[in-house]
Amino acid sequence: MQLAQNLDIGDYLIAPEPSATRLTRAVQGVDHNGDETTIRVVEERPLTIFLNKQEIVTAMTIGDYPEYLALGFLRNQHMVRDDDEITRVDYDEELETVVVRTARSTDYEEKMRRKTRTSGCAVGTVFGDMMEGLGDVVLADTPVRTSWLYVLSAKINRTPSLYLEAGAIHGTVLCQGDRPLVYMEDVGRHNAVDKIAGWMLSEKATSEDKILYTTGRLTSEMVIKTAMMGIPVLASRSGFTAWGVEIAQQVGLTLIGRMKGQRFVCLSGEERLIRDADPAQVAEEPRRAGRKGSKT
Amino acid sequence: MQLAQNLDIGDYLIAPEPSATRLTRAVQGVDHNGDETTIRVVEERPLTIFLNKQEIVTAMTIGDYPEYLALGFLRNQHMVRDDDEITRVDYDEELETVVVRTARSTDYEEKMRRKTRTSGCAVGTVFGDMMEGLGDVVLADTPVRTSWLYVLSAKINRTPSLYLEAGAIHGTVLCQGDRPLVYMEDVGRHNAVDKIAGWMLSEKATSEDKILYTTGRLTSEMVIKTAMMGIPVLASRSGFTAWGVEIAQQVGLTLIGRMKGQRFVCLSGEERLIRDADPAQVAEEPRRAGRKGSKT
Repeated sequence: MQLAQNLDIGDYLIAPEPSATRLTRAVQGVDHNGDETTIRVVEERPLTIFLNKQEIVTAMTIGDYPEYLALGFLRNQHMVRDDDEITRVDYDEELETVVVRTARSTDYEEKMRRKTRTSGCAVGTVFGDMMEGLGDVVLADTPVRTSWLYVLSAKINRTPSLYLEAGAIHGTVLCQGDRPLVYMEDVGRHNAVDKIAGWMLSEKATSEDKILYTTGRLTSEMVIKTAMMGIPVLASRSGFTAWGVEIAQQVGLTLIGRMKGQRFVCLSGEERLIRDADPAQVAEEPRRAGRKGSKT
Repeated sequence: MQLAQNLDIGDYLIAPEPSATRLTRAVQGVDHNGDETTIRVVEERPLTIFLNKQEIVTAMTIGDYPEYLALGFLRNQHMVRDDDEITRVDYDEELETVVVRTARSTDYEEKMRRKTRTSGCAVGTVFGDMMEGLGDVVLADTPVRTSWLYVLSAKINRTPSLYLEAGAIHGTVLCQGDRPLVYMEDVGRHNAVDKIAGWMLSEKATSEDKILYTTGRLTSEMVIKTAMMGIPVLASRSGFTAWGVEIAQQVGLTLIGRMKGQRFVCLSGEERLIRDADPAQVAEEPRRAGRKGSKT
């Protein structure tokens, strides 16, 4: 089996647009030698999200997919349900607001009193709710081939992105088999995941046949969001947290981290893995070609 | 001038404890070859913070400094002021709660209604408040020598930490001159900063003579927190965001990013810099010695 080494950008339904000028800004400063230098830094703008008449949150975002961010945020906070009829989504660029309207009338005044700050951010989620909702989650047994993981990893790592260009940003990619579909980035890791949730809601996409790949660490919140989105597999280049692993094991999510070249570690849901690739055949990663700034 | 290459752990008032067993957990799984493997992953536990009678937030944290986290969080949310008399701070390990009590009676019911999810998390902060509070900030003109930055960078990068050991974690270090003082880590970058704020409040430490160094990206929220803590210099290995730069320029903070070996970029507050080091003399960074897992 030959692992694809060439990037097939045609795979993507939504790919990053690192040269989209409105997502980065040129800023002048000085370098270590005292010489003037101009670098591109990623944009970060406030976006206020309303659900019907209620103001819910202001999110700082790079501003590329405000409607998906709003929809996905609300969905992942359980304020919008998968079976809700979304009547309108209105983005006002000047006011930097998005209003999501549903046929069902909503009132989350009470829900918004309690907040959880997780290792990322779960504004508006009642901690108890967050854990309770997981009790109902049943994730599909969909098998995942290790050959897919290697191909995805290679394709995603080679995709030109803001991450590679300007640093300071997190990416999450919705995948199917060995095909990356929707690559979202943002300054906040949770924004990137919410944008994917918003896209899935908008497109009425299935979740049980998907894999979520992230550049970020596999915290409890990432695991919870992935499970709540009905996606049975979460993979990352990065590391784990103990609670994230525990939750993954509880809900039966396949959790794969520390993916580099041929290596990875699976700490949950190993039963979904079909080992159809010979790790020794997988190319080592090239050394950080083209990375400006540090990933964080 | 000779740049220190040897780590002087005696510098630290608080240093990371990567071998502290309660901060990481051994977890079993399988590797890419299907062989059983055991890796250490960082802990992540909920900590509920109360201010007097009011429950404020639940934070996910590695759990090393719950009292500092609570104090610093409340301080950075402007719920506890620098001149408040803190009468008690009680941590209950079993209930995983911390109660901070002040002489002044407090009621933040109204304040907690509005939330901002920033690129990290600013739970409980009214977005408008966050920006307004900045108008009053005046940061000291304290000069910062580039030789200090190089020494700090080298010392911090060589300090054994959970970051290096288990990945999946962010570190922030309070420094003075070329001396790192307090190195805090946590799964959430903002927790690490809040723990430092809590330490500073507890020790009544001065801020105008300090430098804050972080492994994380220089988002608007990091810049705002640093400014609100009265620290005039913020430095990182990582990248910037446009809003972070803008705010830094507005409040007159010295903002230095992309620090690697001899290189760095300063996008704000260059006037504080005293270039007393020859960049050419600064050693290149060693290649990622000892890094397990990926940094995110």
